[in-house]
Amino acid sequence: MNADEGLSRLRALGFGDADAQELWAHFDGAERRGKQGHGHARIPWLEALEGYEPSARPSLAESEEGFQRWHGGGAIGYLVLGHVVRAQLERPPVHARLVVCERTFPTGMLGHQVRRLADAGLVAVLTATSPARLGHPSGGPKVAGTNPLAIGIPSSAGAPIVVDVSMGAVTWGDVVAGLAEEEQLVPFGGDQAHKAFALALGLQLLVDSLVREEGHGAVLLVAQPAADPVPALRDLAVGVRLPGDSK
Amino acid sequence: MNADEGLSRLRALGFGDADAQELWAHFDGAERRGKQGHGHARIPWLEALEGYEPSARPSLAESEEGFQRWHGGGAIGYLVLGHVVRAQLERPPVHARLVVCERTFPTGMLGHQVRRLADAGLVAVLTATSPARLGHPSGGPKVAGTNPLAIGIPSSAGAPIVVDVSMGAVTWGDVVAGLAEEEQLVPFGGDQAHKAFALALGLQLLVDSLVREEGHGAVLLVAQPAADPVPALRDLAVGVRLPGDSK
Repeated sequence: MNADEGLSRLRALGFGDADAQELWAHFDGAERRGKQGHGHARIPWLEALEGYEPSARPSLAESEEGFQRWHGGGAIGYLVLGHVVRAQLERPPVHARLVVCERTFPTGMLGHQVRRLADAGLVAVLTATSPARLGHPSGGPKVAGTNPLAIGIPSSAGAPIVVDVSMGAVTWGDVVAGLAEEEQLVPFGGDQAHKAFALALGLQLLVDSLVREEGHGAVLLVAQPAADPVPALRDLAVGVRLPGDSK
Repeated sequence: MNADEGLSRLRALGFGDADAQELWAHFDGAERRGKQGHGHARIPWLEALEGYEPSARPSLAESEEGFQRWHGGGAIGYLVLGHVVRAQLERPPVHARLVVCERTFPTGMLGHQVRRLADAGLVAVLTATSPARLGHPSGGPKVAGTNPLAIGIPSSAGAPIVVDVSMGAVTWGDVVAGLAEEEQLVPFGGDQAHKAFALALGLQLLVDSLVREEGHGAVLLVAQPAADPVPALRDLAVGVRLPGDSK
């Protein structure tokens, strides 16, 4: 899918020009990073999705120096996070800020958002919940989403490090894109899958315990760096593909 | 090892009564939870360890409502975190607080600390760095510690959920305790070990980017819950062993 087609299909869904551009940048960025599950396939998926309002805007429900609470207000999660990230860039924390995003779903490739913050010199950690698709490896009901953890670390030289790890062996996006079967969607880790299950559940409860209104959400930590560890790491790890680097 | 022997050996190292009690509670708690690598074996290990001062105390270098920076001041990491956790319990955040702990090593079983916060009704996320023992699964130098992530979620009914996941397939503590060989210390996850490697590296850079003084440290997020998701999770997951529950 090229940009013309993608943007035109997004506008046909009712998204304004700027929002269509933001969504296309997200989907096309994922596609280019080899994360097809969060890529172009999400446009037909959005065409079939219900429960979002293309013209809705998130609102800031609480705001302190070190804490913000946003409500998605019916907007689609990608755009809620985009809005929240721009708000952090416009008014970064003096030290650190925890940002709780209620009713924020779906959120896509979280690395996209922490990369924007890291590109601007901010340390960022982001997680988000999604429908329960992971069960304990020993059995029982599905109780946790694939709930990724993304970490962005700025660098004074070269690209930031961008970690973006889903706790599923495959992503739901891969299932959406036809790249994996739903049965393959289990916690990653093989005989240590209980670890990824525990992380998925812990991240989910972190979000669920911080939101006032039930429903999928996201939690973002933004902080000012006090040091610049990436250049030394890149010097040490010459030849190693570090998280977030292009293939 | 019984409590009398453990406490007496800790006091012989120069620790005061209260500190010896705190260390013993940590090691014996780990032993009882089946985490022998963080258990009694750490007492002979401490007897051989250099570089800490049994009577040292951490200091609070910066303090705002939503941010604190502590310096270990030569104290052993277990006791630094114990001190920092007590400080959070004495003056919890209104909403959320990021706590950076510089020169804080070794820190042991991080679940022990987030459990104390969750038992008191606070949401807690904690990570800490340790010597580089994990390399990328495709090869290259060892660049990341086993850098666990611990998450504690309070519950109005029953025990809190306590996640405590090391990014290593085994822990260094297991190696110390003679339960594993050093060669087994690789990122967990089998053919998806690149995910645990990315998490270990991301958590390490998070700490390394927030500390002002180089060296191993810890980063703690403490927050007030706005919801109480654990009881409903326990109802849904009857029969499933949830993270932090006794075996």
